[in-house]
Formats: sequence, C-alpha cells, structure tokens
Amino acid sequence: LSRSSRSPSRSHRQRIGLPPGSVVYHGEAPAEPVQIHLVSYSADHVESSDHVALETALSHRDRPARSWIHVSGIHDPERIGRIGTHFGLHPLLQEDIVHTSQRPKVEVYDDMVYVVLQTLTLPSPSGTDRSGGDTPPPVQPLRAEQVSLVVGPTWVLSFQERPDPLFAPVRERLRHGRGRIRTQGPDYLAYALVDVVVDSYFLVLEHLGNRIEALEDEVLDDPSPDVQATINETRRDLVSMRRQTWPVRDVLARLERLDTPVWSDDLRPFVRDAYDHAVQVLDLVESQRDIVSGLSDLSMTALSNRMNEIMKVLTIIGTIFLPLTFIAGIYGMNFEYMPELQIWWMYPLVWVLMIGGAAGLLGFFRRKGWL
Amino acid sequence: LSRSSRSPSRSHRQRIGLPPGSVVYHGEAPAEPVQIHLVSYSADHVESSDHVALETALSHRDRPARSWIHVSGIHDPERIGRIGTHFGLHPLLQEDIVHTSQRPKVEVYDDMVYVVLQTLTLPSPSGTDRSGGDTPPPVQPLRAEQVSLVVGPTWVLSFQERPDPLFAPVRERLRHGRGRIRTQGPDYLAYALVDVVVDSYFLVLEHLGNRIEALEDEVLDDPSPDVQATINETRRDLVSMRRQTWPVRDVLARLERLDTPVWSDDLRPFVRDAYDHAVQVLDLVESQRDIVSGLSDLSMTALSNRMNEIMKVLTIIGTIFLPLTFIAGIYGMNFEYMPELQIWWMYPLVWVLMIGGAAGLLGFFRRKGWL
Amino acid sequence: LSRSSRSPSRSHRQRIGLPPGSVVYHGEAPAEPVQIHLVSYSADHVESSDHVALETALSHRDRPARSWIHVSGIHDPERIGRIGTHFGLHPLLQEDIVHTSQRPKVEVYDDMVYVVLQTLTLPSPSGTDRSGGDTPPPVQPLRAEQVSLVVGPTWVLSFQERPDPLFAPVRERLRHGRGRIRTQGPDYLAYALVDVVVDSYFLVLEHLGNRIEALEDEVLDDPSPDVQATINETRRDLVSMRRQTWPVRDVLARLERLDTPVWSDDLRPFVRDAYDHAVQVLDLVESQRDIVSGLSDLSMTALSNRMNEIMKVLTIIGTIFLPLTFIAGIYGMNFEYMPELQIWWMYPLVWVLMIGGAAGLLGFFRRKGWL
Amino acid sequence: LSRSSRSPSRSHRQRIGLPPGSVVYHGEAPAEPVQIHLVSYSADHVESSDHVALETALSHRDRPARSWIHVSGIHDPERIGRIGTHFGLHPLLQEDIVHTSQRPKVEVYDDMVYVVLQTLTLPSPSGTDRSGGDTPPPVQPLRAEQVSLVVGPTWVLSFQERPDPLFAPVRERLRHGRGRIRTQGPDYLAYALVDVVVDSYFLVLEHLGNRIEALEDEVLDDPSPDVQATINETRRDLVSMRRQTWPVRDVLARLERLDTPVWSDDLRPFVRDAYDHAVQVLDLVESQRDIVSGLSDLSMTALSNRMNEIMKVLTIIGTIFLPLTFIAGIYGMNFEYMPELQIWWMYPLVWVLMIGGAAGLLGFFRRKGWL
Amino acid sequence: LSRSSRSPSRSHRQRIGLPPGSVVYHGEAPAEPVQIHLVSYSADHVESSDHVALETALSHRDRPARSWIHVSGIHDPERIGRIGTHFGLHPLLQEDIVHTSQRPKVEVYDDMVYVVLQTLTLPSPSGTDRSGGDTPPPVQPLRAEQVSLVVGPTWVLSFQERPDPLFAPVRERLRHGRGRIRTQGPDYLAYALVDVVVDSYFLVLEHLGNRIEALEDEVLDDPSPDVQATINETRRDLVSMRRQTWPVRDVLARLERLDTPVWSDDLRPFVRDAYDHAVQVLDLVESQRDIVSGLSDLSMTALSNRMNEIMKVLTIIGTIFLPLTFIAGIYGMNFEYMPELQIWWMYPLVWVLMIGGAAGLLGFFRRKGWL
Repeated sequence: LSRSSRSPSRSHRQRIGLPPGSVVYHGEAPAEPVQIHLVSYSADHVESSDHVALETALSHRDRPARSWIHVSGIHDPERIGRIGTHFGLHPLLQEDIVHTSQRPKVEVYDDMVYVVLQTLTLPSPSGTDRSGGDTPPPVQPLRAEQVSLVVGPTWVLSFQERPDPLFAPVRERLRHGRGRIRTQGPDYLAYALVDVVVDSYFLVLEHLGNRIEALEDEVLDDPSPDVQATINETRRDLVSMRRQTWPVRDVLARLERLDTPVWSDDLRPFVRDAYDHAVQVLDLVESQRDIVSGLSDLSMTALSNRMNEIMKVLTIIGTIFLPLTFIAGIYGMNFEYMPELQIWWMYPLVWVLMIGGAAGLLGFFRRKGWL
Repeated sequence: LSRSSRSPSRSHRQRIGLPPGSVVYHGEAPAEPVQIHLVSYSADHVESSDHVALETALSHRDRPARSWIHVSGIHDPERIGRIGTHFGLHPLLQEDIVHTSQRPKVEVYDDMVYVVLQTLTLPSPSGTDRSGGDTPPPVQPLRAEQVSLVVGPTWVLSFQERPDPLFAPVRERLRHGRGRIRTQGPDYLAYALVDVVVDSYFLVLEHLGNRIEALEDEVLDDPSPDVQATINETRRDLVSMRRQTWPVRDVLARLERLDTPVWSDDLRPFVRDAYDHAVQVLDLVESQRDIVSGLSDLSMTALSNRMNEIMKVLTIIGTIFLPLTFIAGIYGMNFEYMPELQIWWMYPLVWVLMIGGAAGLLGFFRRKGWL
Repeated sequence: LSRSSRSPSRSHRQRIGLPPGSVVYHGEAPAEPVQIHLVSYSADHVESSDHVALETALSHRDRPARSWIHVSGIHDPERIGRIGTHFGLHPLLQEDIVHTSQRPKVEVYDDMVYVVLQTLTLPSPSGTDRSGGDTPPPVQPLRAEQVSLVVGPTWVLSFQERPDPLFAPVRERLRHGRGRIRTQGPDYLAYALVDVVVDSYFLVLEHLGNRIEALEDEVLDDPSPDVQATINETRRDLVSMRRQTWPVRDVLARLERLDTPVWSDDLRPFVRDAYDHAVQVLDLVESQRDIVSGLSDLSMTALSNRMNEIMKVLTIIGTIFLPLTFIAGIYGMNFEYMPELQIWWMYPLVWVLMIGGAAGLLGFFRRKGWL
Repeated sequence: LSRSSRSPSRSHRQRIGLPPGSVVYHGEAPAEPVQIHLVSYSADHVESSDHVALETALSHRDRPARSWIHVSGIHDPERIGRIGTHFGLHPLLQEDIVHTSQRPKVEVYDDMVYVVLQTLTLPSPSGTDRSGGDTPPPVQPLRAEQVSLVVGPTWVLSFQERPDPLFAPVRERLRHGRGRIRTQGPDYLAYALVDVVVDSYFLVLEHLGNRIEALEDEVLDDPSPDVQATINETRRDLVSMRRQTWPVRDVLARLERLDTPVWSDDLRPFVRDAYDHAVQVLDLVESQRDIVSGLSDLSMTALSNRMNEIMKVLTIIGTIFLPLTFIAGIYGMNFEYMPELQIWWMYPLVWVLMIGGAAGLLGFFRRKGWL
Repeated sequence: LSRSSRSPSRSHRQRIGLPPGSVVYHGEAPAEPVQIHLVSYSADHVESSDHVALETALSHRDRPARSWIHVSGIHDPERIGRIGTHFGLHPLLQEDIVHTSQRPKVEVYDDMVYVVLQTLTLPSPSGTDRSGGDTPPPVQPLRAEQVSLVVGPTWVLSFQERPDPLFAPVRERLRHGRGRIRTQGPDYLAYALVDVVVDSYFLVLEHLGNRIEALEDEVLDDPSPDVQATINETRRDLVSMRRQTWPVRDVLARLERLDTPVWSDDLRPFVRDAYDHAVQVLDLVESQRDIVSGLSDLSMTALSNRMNEIMKVLTIIGTIFLPLTFIAGIYGMNFEYMPELQIWWMYPLVWVLMIGGAAGLLGFFRRKGWL
C-alpha cells in the first residue's frame, strides 16, 4: 500500500472537530481532473459517453432508461456535493465518498444501497506479465483505492479515486449487450461492479504468489538482506490486503440477505457466487501469510547454514595451520642447545609429521561431515 | 499443490468482464480426451460402460433405472454445456463445473444437489508404498483436482479434471452389489463418492506424516539446507491441504441437515460418519502443522548446535596454539642480549611449560564440558 | 503508556478492603487544580465559561437550557462526590470516575448513561508534526487517560484526569453553532465527545505508523540495539493500545442499540459511523502488530546478515594468511640441514607460490560469492 | 503416540471402497487372544468372571441382573460381529468399534448410547514412579488406545484394544459394593468408566509435567541436541494429547444433556463433574503447550549464550596473543640493520611492553564484562 | 506456581477408583492445625471469634443472626465431613472442597450456592514493597490456593488451604460496620469475599509487571542466562495465572445472572463491577503475555548483538595482525639469498608499511561502522 493509504489517519486528524457530514476531500489532489462517464441503457438500447457535463449526468436521474454515472476523481467536493444533493444522499454518506480509506461496508437507506469497497491495484501493469519468469518482479507496494457505489431505483452512481480501467469490461458488456446485464435492473449492474472488484483481488494474489515463489527460490539460493526486505514488504502487503478484504465477506453476506426494493431477490445466487469468491480470497490470503511466515523462518535457517559453512572453512584452516605454525615456530627458536637442529633427518621428519597431521585432521573433518 | 493449483487466479483474470454463467474452461487442456463413463443400475441389475457417446449418456436421464454418468475431463465446454442444458443445470453451476479451483461447497436447487470438492492426489503412487521405510519419499507437491457432483432424482453426474482411479472402488461395489449401494437411491451413491474423497485425504495425511518423520530423523541427524526446503514444502502442502479440507466440514454438516426430496433423511448417520472423518482430517492437519512448526524450530536449534560444535573446535585449537606460538616466537627473536638462550635446560623447560600449559587448558575445557 | 498506567493495580491494592462505592482518588495528584468548565447552550444561544465555581455548575442541573459540565482533574474526591450526589450518580459510578484505568464500558441507569473511555495522548505534541520526516520521532511511551461521560436528560458531565485540549474542537463547534450540535440534545453532544476520542486514536496510529516506517528503514540500514529497544517499546504501545481500544467497539455497539429515553434513536447512523471508525482502529492496530512482529524478525535477520559479513572478513583473512604465515615459519626454522635455504631462486619461488595461493583463494571466495 | 496411532490413515486406506458397516479389523493383531470379562451385579449381589465364553456373555443380555461385558482385544471381527448382532448394534457402530483411532464421540440410538474415547497410556509404568526425581524419565511416546462403550437398558459393553488394568478399580468398586455403583443402573457404570478414562489423562499430564521440569533444568544447565529432541517429542505428545482430549469435552457436554431412557437424569451432577475435569485437562494441555513452546525459546537462548561464551574465550585469547606474536615476529626478522637488537635493555623492555599490553587488554575485557 | 500446584494430577491419581464423593484430602498436610473462625453478625451487632470449636460453629446454622464460618486448613477430612453433613452439602461438593486445584466454578443447589476460586499469593510479601525499585525482585513462583465458598440462607462457609490474611479486610469491615456489609444478607458477604479475591489478582499483576520492567532493563543492559530463566519463569507464572483467572470471568458472569433465592438480584451491579475487574485482569494477563513474548525476542536480539560485538573485536584484531605477522614471518626466513635483508632502509620501510596497512584497515572498519 502506498504511504498515503498506510496513514489513514491524516484525514481523520484534519476531520477532528468538524461536524459529521462535512464533504471535505483530504487526500492529495491528483493531476487528473474529475471526469464523469455516463452509460444510459435499457434492454435494447445503450448510450455511452465520456467526459459528460455535471448537469447532463444529473438530468438522467428521472429518465425512464437506467443510467450508470461513473465519477473518476473525488477531489472536487463541490461537484460531489451537488451530485449527492441531487440524488438525495445522506450527508454522512457524502462524507464517506470523499473521505477515502473507509472500511468496506454496506449501508441501506430507504431507496438506495450504499457499498464501499477498496480495490487493490498492482503498482505497475508489467508486474503481472512476467508471471512465471525467472527474475523476481520489482517490489513496489500495492495501492488501495476506494470505490463507492450507490444503487438507486433506476441508476447507479460509482466513484473512484482516479481514472482506472477496472470497470472497462463491464462497460464493454453493457455496450455489446452480453449476458443479462442490459435486461436487468441497476442492482445487477452494481453486482457486476462488485464482482469485478472481488475478481481483481485474484490478480493481486497471483502477483503476490509469483513474488513469493521467486523469493523462495532466492532464499534457498542466496539469501541477501534484500530478500529479507522483500519478504517483509510482501508480509506488509498481505497484512494490508487482509485488512481490506476481510470486511468484503461481510459486505457480500449482507448484500445476499438484503431486503429492500432496490436490490432484487433474484440476485441472490449471483451474490452468493461473489461471496464464495471473497471467502476464497480470504483463504488464499491466509495461506499466503502462512507461507510468507514460513519463508521468514526459511531465510533465517539459510543464513545460519551459510554461517555454519563460513565458520567451517575458518575452523578447518585454523585447526590445520595453527598447530603447524606452532611447530615451525618451535624450530625457529634460537636456543643454543637444541639437539634436533643438528640432526639431518629432522627437517624431512618435521615435514612428514606436519603433512601427516594435516591429513589426519582432514580425515577427522571428513568423518565429521565438514568436508 | 502444483503450480497451476497454487494460482487459482489465472482463470479469474481471464474471467473478468465475462458475464456470469459463461462456460469457458480456463485450465491447460490435458492430453487425454474427455471420456464419459456410464453405470446404469437398479437393485438387481447393473450395466457399466466406458467411453460412452454423449447422446447415450443424455438418454439415461429419463430412464427408470438409476444412472451414474461420470465425465473425466472438463476441457470440452461444449459437451459440458450440452450435458448441463440437458439435465437442467443452472448456468452458474455449469460455470463452476469447468471453472476449477472452486472452494468446496454444497448448493441446493429445486430438484438437484450440487457438491464441489477438491481431491488431493499424491504426486507419485509409489510415495505411499514406502511408508515406514528409511529413505524419505521424494518431495513433490500435492495436486488438487476438482470433483463436482450433481445429484438428481434418478441420476448422479460426476465431473473430474482428468482420468483418475479414485472412484474405481465405488464402481466395483456397484458392479458386485456389495452393501446397500444398489438398493439405495442416487443420493446414497453421491454419499459414497463424497466418502471416498474424504477417505482419500487420509492417504495424503499418511504420506505427509511419513515425510515428517523422515524429516525429523534427518534434522536430528544432519540438518542440511535441503531438509529445510523440504520442511518448507511440507508446510506449504499442509497450508494448502487445510485450505482445501476446511470447507469440507461445512459441506458435510450441510449435507447432514439437507431438507430436499433428492437427499433422503436415511443418509444422516452415514453423512454423520463422513463428517466425523472430515473433522478428524482437520484435527490431523492442525496437529501436523504444529509438528512441522516444531520441526522448523528443531532444525534451527540443530543448526545452532552444530555452530557451537564448530566454534568449540576452533576455540580449543586457537586457545591452545596461539599462546604456544607466541612463546616460540619469543625465543625466535634475534636480540643479542637474551640470557635464556644460552642456558642449556631452557629448551626442555620451554617444552615442559608448553605441554603443561596445553594440558591445563585441555583440563579447563573438559571441566567446562567442551570436550 | 506511562508507568502509572502500566500498573493499574496500585489503586486496586489500596482499594482492597474498602466497601464498594468509596470515592477515593488513588493516582498521584497532578500539579494543576481541579477546574470546572461550563457550556450552557440551546439552539440559538450559547454561554461558555471556564473556571466555574462548583455551586454554579451544580445549579445548572435544573435549568431548561442544556449544559455541559466538564471537570478536568479528578483528584479532589470531595468535589466529585458533591457533583455525584447532586446529579444522583450511583455510588459505584462515582467510584469508577475517580478510580482511573477502568476498562472502557457503558452503563445504563434509569435516566442517565455512563460511558468510560481511555484517551491515548501522544507523549509530546511535536512528535506528530514531524510525520514524514527522516529522523525517527523520539520514543516516549503513550499516556492513557480516563474520560468519563455521564449523559442526563438535559446535561452532560465529562471528567478528565488533567487539562487537555482534546475536547476544544467540540467546544468550538458549540460556540459557533456549526452543524446540528446546538439543535440536538445532550446525547448528541456526548456522541460528539465519544467521536473525538475515537478519532484521536487515528493520530496515535499515524504516530506509531511513522515510527514503524522509520524503524524499518533503520533496521535495514543499521540495526543497533537501540532499534530493538524501540521496536519493543512500539510493540508495548500497540499491546496497550489494543487493550484500551478493543472494548471501545463494544461500547459503541452497545450505544447504537441503546433503548433509553436519554439516548435518541436518531443518533444511530452517527454512532454507527463512530463504530465503523472504532473497528477500523482495531484493524489498524492488528495490522501494525503484525508489521512490528515482522520487524522483529527482520531485525534478527539483519543481525545475522551482519554477523555473516563480519565472519566472512575474518575467514577470508584467516584462510589466506594462516597458510602463508605457516610457510614463512617453515623457512624461519633453524635446522642445519635445509637444502632449500641455499638455493637462490627459492626465495622468489616462495613469494610466487604465496601470491599464487592467495590469488587462488580469493578466486575461490569470489566463486562462493563471499567477495 | 506410537507410530501406529500416528498414522490413523492406514486403516482408512484399506477401508476405501468397502461398503460402510464392514466389520474388519485393520490394526496389527496383538499377541494376546481376545478375552471376555463378565461382571453380573445387582444391589446385593455381584458375580465376576474372567475368560468367559462368548455364548455365556451373550446369554446375559436378557437376564434381570445388570451385566458388564468387557472385551479386551478387538482383532477378532467375527466375535465382535456376533456380539454386535446379538445386542442389536448398528452396522456403522460395529465398524467403529473395531476401526481404531476414531475421534471421541457419543452416538445415541433408540435404546442404547455409544461412547468412544481414546485412553492415553504411559509408555512404561515406571515412568511415573520417579516423578520428582532428578534424572529425567526416559522419553517414549504415548500410546493411544480406543475404548468403546455401549450402554443398553441392563448392560454395558466395553471394548479395549488390549488387556489393560485401567478399569480394574471400577471392578473393585463393583466387587466390594463401594459407593452407589451397585445400586445404580448401567448408565452409572458407564459414567464410572468414562470418569476413569478422564482421570487417567491427569496421570499423563503429570508425567509430561515432570518431563518438562526436568527438561527445563537441563536446558538451563547444559542444552544438548538430545534435550531438543526430547522437547520436540514432548511437543508432539502434547499435540496428540490435545487432539485426543479436545473432543472429550464435547462428549461429556453431550452426555450431560442426554435425553434418552437409558441415561438417567440423576447422573447429571456426576457427568458435570467429569466435564469439569475434562475442561481442566484441556486447560493444562494448553498451559503445557505454552510452556514447552517457551522451553524451545529458552533452549535457543541458552545455545546462543553458550556460543557467546565460546566466542568470548576465542576473542580474548586471539586479541591478546595475535599482537604479542606479531611483536615477537618483528624481532625475529633477519634484517641486518635493526638497531634495537643490539640494545641490551630492549629484550626486557619488550617483555614489559607485552605483559603491560596483555594486562591492559584484560582490563579492557573486564570492563566490558567479558571476564 | 509452586511445584504442588503445577501437578494437579497427584490427587487425581490417588482418587482413581474411589467412588465419587469421597472426602479424602490429597495434599501435603501443612504444619498448622485446622482453625475455625466465626463471625456472627446482624445490622447492629457483630461477634467475631477465632479458634472456635467445631460444635460451636455448627450450632450457628439455625440461629437468626447471619454467620460466617471460615475454615483455614482443609487437611482434616473428618471435620470437613462433619461440617458438610451438618450443613447439608452434596457429597461431590464436599469432595471438591478438600480436593484442591479445582477449576474455578459456580454450582447452584436448591438452597445454596457453591463457588470455588483460586487465589494467587505472592511468594514473599516483601516482593511488592520494593515495586519501582532498581533491583529486580527475587523470582519465586506464585502459589495457587483454593478458596471455596458455600452461601446458604443465613450463613456463609469459606474454606482456605492454610491461614492467610486475605480476608482480614472483610472481617474488619464487618467488625466496624463500614458500608452496607452488615445490613445485607450472606450473599453480599460472599460477593465481598469474591471481590477481594479478584482484587488480589491485581497485586500479582503489579508484581509481575514490575518484574517484567526490571527484566526489560536487564535484557537491554546485560542479558545473562539468568535473565532468560527469569523470563521463562514469568512466562510460566502468566500461563498459570491465565489458567486460574480465565474461568473467573465465567464464574462472575454466572453469578450475575443467578436466579436463586439465596442470591439477591440487588447484587447485580456489584457483581457486574467485579466482572469488569475480572475482564480487566484477563486483558492485563494477555498484554503481559505479549510483552513477555516480546521480551524473549528482545533478549535473543540482544544476544546476537553481543555476539556481533564480540566477533567484531576478534575480526578487527585478526584482520590487522594476521597480515602483519605474516610480513614479519617473511623476513624471519633464513634463505641465504634475500636481498632486502641487506638494505638498511628496509627495516624502517617495513615498519612504515605495517603501520600504514593497519591504519588503512582501521579506516576501512570505521567506514563500515565497526568501530
């Protein structure tokens, strides 16, 4: 997660003392301007336009055709406020939309359903293309971005922090009328958006899974401090991912049991399907956490193994040459009375003894399994 | 688990944007063609045929005799789609059948029950034959394969990813009319298939148990980095196994309480029995996880012990020979005024002092317990 | 947490044997005197005064205007007792107010609601200003202080251990009539106070998050024992924080479902919002605990890495120079019969052999990756 | 647990494909033949006979006196089958009796209650006699054996894997008419048997507790690799014990709430008492697991401490003698122009400097706390 | 916990085979004789006498005044039995009173309530007086002692293992009529006794907290093996404390909801208060467990740090002096043809090179941060 998403408290700090329901954006304003995308559709007709003016979007509230108003960029509280007021959103709800780093949740109002989710986007799209490759993908933290959905009787509002192709496939389905998406109500569209968010978690998991496998190979091969930093970063990513996806299960369980006119009962098997996927995501996150934790142990053991190997070399060299040097030192002494020095076969004998001793020590080390 | 089953997200990635209910196979197509096996049976008659044509299989839906249609290979979505449509399977259900790496679950429709399980197959069948042997079985990851069962009023459909002898014993029981299998309805047959899957987990646990015992011996004997990699692989296998078997308990608990005409209440004690086995599998998985975790600690300690042993050798050698070499160095100095050099008994005295000092140090080390 | 808050038992020890309901302050009396702040407000009027006399405050109980009586300093049991008696507080409740280090809780009486929370205040206000800076903020333990709220039909009593600007923003909102705070009853004021306390936890989390990031950089850079002490202190802070904030979730869940005339049902969405924040605080505390735990592993690995690096240097030096010194020692021996000594090319040859051997060893170490 | 009980899957593997309810014994047949013990009793009369013929035992089913038929040895499926059929046991129940390594459970049939438990027997009875002694008891894994009880209207059937004196005290109580055992129905007898099994867990816990204390002393005294293996074995024993005793709590909770004519309500306080003991067993198992886990840490730290001690010795010796040897080496050089060599007071001066330097280093090490 | 309380199985072993309800004391009989203390009280009168004869105590059962009979010492089963029979205690209850190391629990009989708790007493009272001092308190294990309370219509029986001043403050309150204790029924007295036990846990926690802080200082200062043993002992104390206090929460929750004439509903807020304290004790125990666990990591890191420091010294010395000694050795060789030996400036040059090399290495080490 990027530094900003790691510190969800910044906006909280600035919020302290504000009355609840204040629509104030607290993040850093991104470079891109706020854009409104509009899709108006019915069973046999679809109209999609980007960069729609705010008034055009607002006018679609009361049209008979269903409409999906997608706002990418939430750093213009004034516009968000106007949309909110026009569609009758509760003040707290308007605050939640611009106040990023919400915990995923569902809220049900009389004639609308509000869903907040966090998408996790891979830092660079190239990261997943190399999956299965030999070199580990470059480690950059995941980025969490808030997605807010408001489902009304004939419309869906969706808000994203910045432009992102996440929902493009759904727009494609709408445009080509694939499946039942155009014949169903806005609740089905909202389900489709939620489903896309849940499915996108699998991409992140695959990315992390590849990273973990590359790490495992590297740990067993050559555990550098770098590896440990990457393991730690992966652990953090999983911790964050767990925090962001854990509540999604509750969101989907709640959506399945929802009893409100804007959310059809016919959606139940579909939401149940998404619920199963969310549970599977959690299972996989937990599994990967276990595996990363094992990786940390593995890397400690690999380090100890290396240390043992290093020390074996030093010990073998020291154990062989310290005694030999001592013997050489003995006969380098300058005592006048050292009878061995005069014996001609002493020098070869010393060599023989030295080589024999060294060979004996090498045999001893081999028996100990150090060689 | 094989690399493919570790990355359940690949199919998810390709699925993003598809409307739900799309019957598209996402795995790698195996070499074997899709095969349909058919067993048609009643209390006093059984007819079993392999490699049945699709039409023949479909025609059995409305026959009075009970029939079991087993499809091995799910990489032909067209055939799966035709079977699904013919037997009236919900589109999401058809998608789940070909979309492998589902989480185990039960789904109840009006007149059918859908069960998904994951079998865990041992990498090589020889792995279990050597149980109790001295050499550790070769470490290959487990393979998870999806088994889908659909139980209708008079028929059972079963789908497997590839041909596998897992269900052969059930076919044998049907053929020889052992037990009550032929006199009971298709729900009993489905129970028998689920039971076989649950029992197969015990095989995997035994395999892992043997591997763990071999690892334990090896850790205490000679902890190589290899051992640590195997411990890690076993930990991963257990993590995956836990993920695959944990939901099986819920599946069986749900099957026990099922209230639908296609699932007889008389099955309850049998399903309860399978439930008990599933709980036992989970207990054993947890126990083995604990044991593997202890093994990791044990291997760290063994490494530290070795390090201590290595360092003791170096320290003993260094502590004895460094001072001796220093003394030899002293009397190797070339000062003109070194009165000791002229004394005839100094050389033997130095030897005596050196041997005495070394002996004293050895005694000191023995007292410290280093020898 | 400061030493005093770490030992919540001191007051308990002194309390043993006292009858329940004894209003005795057990902490160290702070330097500041007990101060009473009074805000009397209605929809279109507000009157705020500091340093109010006790009698003035008491007289506001029966006035029609709503009043907020804030007592900073609880070390004057006599005054607390008089307030308690005057407002009809249960003896156990009076005891809880002065008896700091209570577990956060809600208690409902006939016509009042009693809420205890623990605020966590940053040791020095400068600590958060530097967030994002490069130097780690100085490590001082967090301080827990008890906040007690009593909500009556027309008044709110609040008690704090010592003067603290925590509630200043709420007073500002009252004074300027921002939001609905002046038009709502005392329950809304109490909610606003609780909300401020919950929001203040995010400040602490941000502070700890910054500290953790600085620690992570330091661990990977240069893991000194100092770092480890700071990691440990952070772990303790998180342990304490978890202990203080865990019950807050229950407090808010209970406040949401409260069924008493002094707590309006209209507050529910607001309390729900605060509840969501409390859950988010817990999620973040758990995440940070996980991250700190990973940091501890990371620092162990970094230490082992350093050790490996140190030992590599010693081993390389030892392995190269011990054999060389031995060879030099050989030709320093004083045997009379050493034919090599007379050969003129032996000395250069020995140099060549030595340099060749050292170069070979260096190549060996490079191949091993030690250089 | 013995190797056989660690691999509960062996029987499962052989069971695959068998119809449920097959009474086939899968363990290794022990040397001892199957023996039937019979106690027939009423309030004022008792008759106990060992080695009873099967027919005699069967004939007691319909006698007015209560009877306890104890079968030690379950490796004769034919006899078990005859008993089962005669007493009207469900086929699955018969299978469970001979199919060892069941999970502890209760099953209620119309007129009988079936209880399975696992006893944990100490490897050698001498192990507990030495409790509190200084030498650690020899480490042998625990052995789990299945005990099955069937309680009917006037009889109790009990099955044990092999002859074991576990139930001897109950027979004694029956024989001497102590307590209410003879005046109560067979359900009270069954309770007494269950109670004996639960109490026997305390013996195992005491045994393990003694082993843990001995280990702790040994770890602090001299942590050998042997100790670590024993710690690991103890951990495994506790893991297994937890697995076997965890379900016992549910068994007893279920027995307490049992609503069937063969299990009197008057037993409730007694079963509750046994339930309390089972919970206490679980508490103690968890505590011992925590303690063993701490022991593992303790042993790692002890190893590191030893390493530090070893390295200190080497470092002190090396730091003192390497410079001294260097100085000696300097004046052992054969340069023609070395003016110091001619000065008569240089040799004593070198000695003085050497001793002074060594003393200084020793002082430095003492200040560092290394001596 | 003392050795006896760590082995709760001893009494169980001796109990095996005894009929339930046998009043047999299994602990070691303490030196002090069994003493009976009697307090007879009503709203305006109190009579307290120590060392009361058994008959006197028994006679108070049917008096109109309330009476508190406190028995310190339970090693005289005959007397306990007589009291039990006289007051109509259930045999299992009588057994529980003398059978120490019960799990804390409540049992409700027709006209009496039975409560068992475990007090944890500090090994030496001086241990807590020094709290905050610099030297760590001496480490002695905690001692658990069983307290049994039986509350009847007009009397309270309390049993303690040995004389202990724990309940003295309650007696004082009774004697001086402080609070409502004399005007309330025996249930209030029982509550007061339970409250004293719960409060006493805070003393133990404070003691442990002080010990942990002293340990932390010591670990960062000088981690000796001794420290590790104390950490381990503290961990064990916390494990035991958790085991003894965990059920207390359930005891108090049950007491709060109790629906029996001998336990007045008016006690609810008081019991709730004690419940809150018990939950706080559990929170603190868990926090301290976390902190001790972090301490163990801290001590491992401190040990590794020391090792690094030790190895740095050795490596610096070795890296400097091994090459120097080698150079000295070169010019100590006795080759006849060594032209350098005749050059007068070689000797000073060698010195210069040596000092330069050493200085270079020192600079290198300083840049690496090793100096």
